[in-house]
Amino acid sequence: MTDSTIAFAPASIGNVAVGFDMLGLALEGVGDRVGAERRSEYGISISAVYGLDGLEHPYLPAEPGKNTASIAAEALWQEHGDDGGAALTIFKGVPLQSGMGSSAASAVAAVVAVNALLLKPLPVQDLLHFAMAGEQYASGGLHADNVAPSLFGGLVFCPSVLLPETVCLPVPTGISAVLVHPELQINTAHARKGLSATYSMQQWLEQQAYLGGFIAACASNDHDLLAKSLKDVIIEPQRAASVACFPAVRDAAMDNGALGCSLSGSGPSIFALVQSQRAEALSAQMAEACRNMGIECQSWISSMSAPGAYLESSA
Amino acid sequence: MTDSTIAFAPASIGNVAVGFDMLGLALEGVGDRVGAERRSEYGISISAVYGLDGLEHPYLPAEPGKNTASIAAEALWQEHGDDGGAALTIFKGVPLQSGMGSSAASAVAAVVAVNALLLKPLPVQDLLHFAMAGEQYASGGLHADNVAPSLFGGLVFCPSVLLPETVCLPVPTGISAVLVHPELQINTAHARKGLSATYSMQQWLEQQAYLGGFIAACASNDHDLLAKSLKDVIIEPQRAASVACFPAVRDAAMDNGALGCSLSGSGPSIFALVQSQRAEALSAQMAEACRNMGIECQSWISSMSAPGAYLESSA
Repeated sequence: MTDSTIAFAPASIGNVAVGFDMLGLALEGVGDRVGAERRSEYGISISAVYGLDGLEHPYLPAEPGKNTASIAAEALWQEHGDDGGAALTIFKGVPLQSGMGSSAASAVAAVVAVNALLLKPLPVQDLLHFAMAGEQYASGGLHADNVAPSLFGGLVFCPSVLLPETVCLPVPTGISAVLVHPELQINTAHARKGLSATYSMQQWLEQQAYLGGFIAACASNDHDLLAKSLKDVIIEPQRAASVACFPAVRDAAMDNGALGCSLSGSGPSIFALVQSQRAEALSAQMAEACRNMGIECQSWISSMSAPGAYLESSA
Repeated sequence: MTDSTIAFAPASIGNVAVGFDMLGLALEGVGDRVGAERRSEYGISISAVYGLDGLEHPYLPAEPGKNTASIAAEALWQEHGDDGGAALTIFKGVPLQSGMGSSAASAVAAVVAVNALLLKPLPVQDLLHFAMAGEQYASGGLHADNVAPSLFGGLVFCPSVLLPETVCLPVPTGISAVLVHPELQINTAHARKGLSATYSMQQWLEQQAYLGGFIAACASNDHDLLAKSLKDVIIEPQRAASVACFPAVRDAAMDNGALGCSLSGSGPSIFALVQSQRAEALSAQMAEACRNMGIECQSWISSMSAPGAYLESSA
């Protein structure tokens, strides 16, 4: 019997400009870790939540009913656990309210860690449902666009109407993602409430044209079509004003060779796709544009086929 | 110098359920023929318009400014013709106002026939623009979802915002299209005017999820995903009531193994996609359901990679 596990789950870019609520891209080099240890008491508890500085996290709740990690793990345990339970230790690596799928990464890492404690661990595809239970608490909607890429890696098409089916899309070769995280915070649940409830036929058709073009471009490795398609004409215009540095960072990206640039999730993070050999320079240019607005930032560069969540240790 | 040509252009399924105004599929075995003969007078004229019965067509105008074939050919001639002109003879094989891209087939065949008369014929990709000029006159909108598949063949993704780029999608193997044409007529331009101008976020997202799923399914040859995705939750519900036999024909299709079934264009024609070995039986079952409603019909079976327009003769 396994008594102790640690799992890692990556941050992710939600929406990817063209696929509001239905498309997500895993990020390399940034994510959450969750340790799970068997306990004799039934159910899931939280031992501690640590920040990047190694200290107890100042904001995140250690109450099991209020943390996405424990909510997700509890959903799994209720259906597949035994008479005992598990205590989670959460190491937050993804900034909160960053538009980088922070709550999804915690939920996914927790589910993967606790799954490995089960007498009969489930196949990874079956974990999506439970990770989404945690994400739903955090984001106020049942969307998989951060959970699915964090769990499976790469670029995942995962609209609600096709669930539980998710589609791991082929990714174009030689393209990287650059993500800049301005030190601002946006609450996803609040951001959703500000969106218009209705759209014109023209808006709908234009946006779905870009989604279709993007998926076709990925399948055929057509970088020109990808650049023509990587546009959000519906959600981004409604959210851009809440991220003061967005126009400057986007202009820096588009003026320096990005194929496209938009908000990651509900922001404030901003991502661009770019030819891989241009990624380092673009990252610096986008970050500089952000700092020129007086806003500090971090940035990451990722391939488009970043690995999904994995078990780091099991004993 | 070429003096006389004949070109064939196939009928097509517009929208293909998931891609209103932006997706079309060429059909095998049904289309229009246009002959073009050099004349010394400048510009494009029409010699005659014949129906399937070999007689002069009772409805279609032979006035060059009112026929999609001559309007399209004239647009080409204005830009690339010489001091002379050409006279068209149009052989209508596609029923009028059928939802089978009748006006597009005439426009495409005319453009292909006249292109071959030019001293320097254009590559086929460059003909789309001129064929669309004819289609615009007929349908009241600048859409390529019939013109593009009729010109290029196969399954073509061609949203307005990506034009002049069009994307010939890979097609799933072992799937055929069945098309049933009830003997009713629907005017596309009128049908467009009846559509709602605004849609809820949920409608938009659901429909674009199906478009994205369909394109991904085609690229990965995933028949299950194709079946889950081949749905129109926005346009079909608004148009179904205008085709009395639609519910019965659709039920016959879905009860007998179709992966999906919807209106072709604005109807009245109804198409289904189905495993090729089931296509003959399904065609009979859909036609029977139509006739049981007291409506006579014709039907066709087509591969998903039907050829596009081609020159039949040139002298």
